[in-house]
Amino acid sequence: MTILVTGADGYMGWPALMRLALRFPDETIVGVDNYARRLWVEEVGSWSAIPIYSMDERLATFKEVFGKDNVVYHPVDLTDYYAVKELIEKYKPRAIVHLAAQPSAPYSMISPKHALYTQGNNVLATLNIIQAVKEVDPKIHIIETTTMGVYGTPNIDIPEGFFEIEFRGRKDKLPFPHQAGSWYHWSKVHDANNLMFAAKVYKIPVTDLRLGVVYGTHTEETRKDPKLATRFDFDFWFGTLFNRFCAQAVTGYPLTVYGKGGQTRGYISLDDTVETLALAVEKPAAEGEFRVVNMFVETVSVRGMAEKVQAAGSKVGLSVEVMTVPPPRVEALEHYYNPENKKLFDELGLKPKYTVEKALPEVLEDLLKVKDRIEAKKDKFLPKHLREKQ
Amino acid sequence: MTILVTGADGYMGWPALMRLALRFPDETIVGVDNYARRLWVEEVGSWSAIPIYSMDERLATFKEVFGKDNVVYHPVDLTDYYAVKELIEKYKPRAIVHLAAQPSAPYSMISPKHALYTQGNNVLATLNIIQAVKEVDPKIHIIETTTMGVYGTPNIDIPEGFFEIEFRGRKDKLPFPHQAGSWYHWSKVHDANNLMFAAKVYKIPVTDLRLGVVYGTHTEETRKDPKLATRFDFDFWFGTLFNRFCAQAVTGYPLTVYGKGGQTRGYISLDDTVETLALAVEKPAAEGEFRVVNMFVETVSVRGMAEKVQAAGSKVGLSVEVMTVPPPRVEALEHYYNPENKKLFDELGLKPKYTVEKALPEVLEDLLKVKDRIEAKKDKFLPKHLREKQ
Repeated sequence: MTILVTGADGYMGWPALMRLALRFPDETIVGVDNYARRLWVEEVGSWSAIPIYSMDERLATFKEVFGKDNVVYHPVDLTDYYAVKELIEKYKPRAIVHLAAQPSAPYSMISPKHALYTQGNNVLATLNIIQAVKEVDPKIHIIETTTMGVYGTPNIDIPEGFFEIEFRGRKDKLPFPHQAGSWYHWSKVHDANNLMFAAKVYKIPVTDLRLGVVYGTHTEETRKDPKLATRFDFDFWFGTLFNRFCAQAVTGYPLTVYGKGGQTRGYISLDDTVETLALAVEKPAAEGEFRVVNMFVETVSVRGMAEKVQAAGSKVGLSVEVMTVPPPRVEALEHYYNPENKKLFDELGLKPKYTVEKALPEVLEDLLKVKDRIEAKKDKFLPKHLREKQ
Repeated sequence: MTILVTGADGYMGWPALMRLALRFPDETIVGVDNYARRLWVEEVGSWSAIPIYSMDERLATFKEVFGKDNVVYHPVDLTDYYAVKELIEKYKPRAIVHLAAQPSAPYSMISPKHALYTQGNNVLATLNIIQAVKEVDPKIHIIETTTMGVYGTPNIDIPEGFFEIEFRGRKDKLPFPHQAGSWYHWSKVHDANNLMFAAKVYKIPVTDLRLGVVYGTHTEETRKDPKLATRFDFDFWFGTLFNRFCAQAVTGYPLTVYGKGGQTRGYISLDDTVETLALAVEKPAAEGEFRVVNMFVETVSVRGMAEKVQAAGSKVGLSVEVMTVPPPRVEALEHYYNPENKKLFDELGLKPKYTVEKALPEVLEDLLKVKDRIEAKKDKFLPKHLREKQ
């Protein structure tokens, strides 16, 4: 049997490829990517804090370290329908772990071209996968990481995808409304909508993992050899909050908090993320099921995160300052946030290894080893117009 | 001042262009289209029942008949961002009436390529307009006809875009959930979502006209000269229900009702549709407002429509039969349907000229004149696989 992983060169994709290869040793794990993430980060003038290797070197090292030869890789652009169909026809995977996407909200907001690229790339890639699965074998389980960002920050609890409501005296169970905050986040709403319809009309089993913010430097597998490392972005565009704060902390750069720092989000470690992907493959959605799982372990506010990094920093001898900057995009700075995340534990069975607090000391330690690489690009923590406002 | 009309060669677009040119005689009305609709209908092997003329002939006739020279036309493919931006820079329109889209649900479901084309074409065209408006002048009012189909058929009342709800003891006003029924309908959900975000993030005034099924052979303007006629499609893919039923009635072909015919939709005549577009231009949305208007005059079930056509047919000497066929796509055959449409009358001020019943005699009369053209393509009322099931 075969499992396909898209975005296999990415932050989550590469460790996911290894986790799946080790978890399902009798199956072939097929990774595809077009290396676009490396180019986007180059475009904004930054780089991965932790050096990363070519896919060839990664795969050779994986084989060497783990003695496993069940991973193959293809450079594929998923916006090419015929390439996607050929790939799925060739391997007939039982599951597709679809991680490929332009995943940065700020990148999607840079210019018209970036907005158009993000939505065109993400939406058409996913729709290509849906259409090819329908043509080749509608029993293939599609697993996509969308984002908790599809919900925005409504003033009511956030259930997992659907909610039962009463309106003017009548009741129905409906998809929870979407209120995304960037062209990237909307691309994932479009994906989620298309996937919901694909489950309904083609009976494809679909798991929509609405991912929180992923953080961390390593998984169990990436730690085994420097050549197995995954990328670690810390710039304004591709560095997510926890990761960027840690990079700022090790270089003595103050933690930049937007506004009052009341913005709260869900967080999950990189190791728990790839574990959840393996669990979703292990426990597939049913035929025609559109299974929505809110995928985060805890919620933390920006201010709370800054304080946690400050506290963890002081334990390893780092003096961490906190600085307030104007918010870069239109979003509520103080808001109610109470998302549910029961299915992650009750249905998929994740037993989280990490919390933010538990992960912080090892991440700071990892980053201190690459302090020079972060220093060299510390002008990328904030875009020019925000640096000038400080 | 200038008003831009996209999809100006289409069923609604051409009469809208004329209505706007006559309503706003001191402004330049700029029509753009890439003639794609003509090609799609050719592709499915059908044609317009009422013969239509080239844009050059249409414009020359318009000038002759109405003595007006305030319409210009450009062949533009809206999926080309730079072409869209150039156009908007050149004319700096005060409003864009965005009608261009692949509008057929069944066409979008034919094959993977049709699904991909529909979503790529519709979503990227609208996002190009949004991005170009943001770059050139965010005060430009964008008016798009999306569809009542974005709501699906929930078991609760359908408000106009937003609803106030209570969930687990807390309240919020949220976008009404989307449950579309084809790749086409989902492309309009994506558009509506992108437009909502454009209003929020760029402060663009947006009117989202959630259009019901449009019917009719003529508007006041198209009646004035055969060369001013707009297209009239009656095939399975591009003929909407009322129009196809009328074409079936005049050729003695039984009216095809899917299942029990309980599916209910909102309807509005072509003349009232172009009038609503003119009203939306006259009364723009505010800066940053995302104004959603449910745009239909009455709701009618499929069975009810068949009966109305039967009754009207008998008055002009047509003996109309009703036939039941299996439904072509996954949708509820009997359902609750209670959509609101207050804003169309109270805010935009439409005074409808037509109801289905009032329009029927003149539509049947118009179609009897082109009976031969419908006869010649009557194998297009149903696709092959449905004809074989009869």
